[in-house]
Amino acid sequence: MRAAGLVSLVGAGPGHPDHLTQKAVRRLCDADLVLYDALVDPGVLALAERAECVNVGKRGGGLQTSQAAIEQLLIEAGSKGRRVVRLKGGDPFVFGRGAEEALALQAAGIPFEVVPGVSSAIAAPALAGIPVTHRGVASGFVVITTADATASAAVIDALPPGLVTVVALMSMGGRAALTARLLERGWPADTPAAMLLGAATPRQWTWKGPLGDLATCEPPAQSADAPGTIVIGFVAAIDLALVQGEIPALAGASSLAVT
Amino acid sequence: MRAAGLVSLVGAGPGHPDHLTQKAVRRLCDADLVLYDALVDPGVLALAERAECVNVGKRGGGLQTSQAAIEQLLIEAGSKGRRVVRLKGGDPFVFGRGAEEALALQAAGIPFEVVPGVSSAIAAPALAGIPVTHRGVASGFVVITTADATASAAVIDALPPGLVTVVALMSMGGRAALTARLLERGWPADTPAAMLLGAATPRQWTWKGPLGDLATCEPPAQSADAPGTIVIGFVAAIDLALVQGEIPALAGASSLAVT
Repeated sequence: MRAAGLVSLVGAGPGHPDHLTQKAVRRLCDADLVLYDALVDPGVLALAERAECVNVGKRGGGLQTSQAAIEQLLIEAGSKGRRVVRLKGGDPFVFGRGAEEALALQAAGIPFEVVPGVSSAIAAPALAGIPVTHRGVASGFVVITTADATASAAVIDALPPGLVTVVALMSMGGRAALTARLLERGWPADTPAAMLLGAATPRQWTWKGPLGDLATCEPPAQSADAPGTIVIGFVAAIDLALVQGEIPALAGASSLAVT
Repeated sequence: MRAAGLVSLVGAGPGHPDHLTQKAVRRLCDADLVLYDALVDPGVLALAERAECVNVGKRGGGLQTSQAAIEQLLIEAGSKGRRVVRLKGGDPFVFGRGAEEALALQAAGIPFEVVPGVSSAIAAPALAGIPVTHRGVASGFVVITTADATASAAVIDALPPGLVTVVALMSMGGRAALTARLLERGWPADTPAAMLLGAATPRQWTWKGPLGDLATCEPPAQSADAPGTIVIGFVAAIDLALVQGEIPALAGASSLAVT
């Protein structure tokens, strides 16, 4: 008797497999099919040793698979009893269309679960030394995307400048409009801002500067199409000097690799 | 020669060790001192096999260690070359005072890093079947805490009802005031809401209902002081029926434990 299939909507985190959760790693190891978005780190996919891996992303060489086709693939694989991982950058329920896929699976009667991931909305700034909240500086944060231009503009128009940190995902193409709207709303042009591309990947590129320059700063070619996180608010000036990368092993420490 | 110390500000995720990142696990395994907040899951602490573990939380039997004392402990341990993990529920830079501790370490010249975690702001709703964003329903979300009553009230007052999902952390004590403010701002009393206590822990308790009942719903005693996440917005009505817990092993699958 074959066990029932399961579709796991899994968050891959911001990039490097270091930021995968233990449950995400197990699901990848056990998967026989992985449908992944463009730009998922190769080190993450490498964990899915026994799986067929299919790029269903909208860019980066993917087949431009439509949302309906992705949902159909998930339903078909799940109904055949396969262990499917639907792998999305960051967290599957933050602008990832994860809930749409979950609802399609639910309507088709396919068992599914969500494996939350480390969201780039919080982690990309953190890894660049920027906390999204900080006592006395920002008591909250809002996460938007200019991919929904109407909603993001409405949020900007409503919020008084500086009240909360503004984090914009999937907004590289909309950053000129976003900047213009913030300035129009009264955010000073010297409000600290940051643009974080390819966080936790080899293409990582960090820009920090005044809001007034956000629209015109130019990422290098090799990072230009990496996933981007934009942060606007006083927290972007905090500039923590974090230790990055490898750390020398301690005598007597466990033999686990440390990055 | 002893290697330099390192203080790692580590996010423990919402509860169960399943939601720890691979890097967080390594840091716990290598740590010789762990300073943890109250209510961190015992399974998470168990990973720190060679470490002295100290509860510096504000509740749950901790010593009510002051923020200044915690920072001093981190600096002293780091300056002695120890591998220190400062373990916080969720993500260390979301209302965790992580940035304050980082700045104190920076001022003292102690090497430090941040290991982002799965934030309860996103994961607690997700694990209860609620996506914080969903196309056509919520194009963004704002994360606040009533622990800062002035700022959270200002956010509520500014945002038009229903424009984005509102997620409130550490707001169980402030939920009556939060509810009143939202109703006053024009959010309909039948707006879907949810209260998620002890997500991904044995004390997990989920309430879903109308905003008008949020202030008066009564959690069971064993969950009443568990960390809580409040969600207000139309996404709270989505109600995905996720597979939970154990999944039968597949013939031929890897031998990794699956939960």
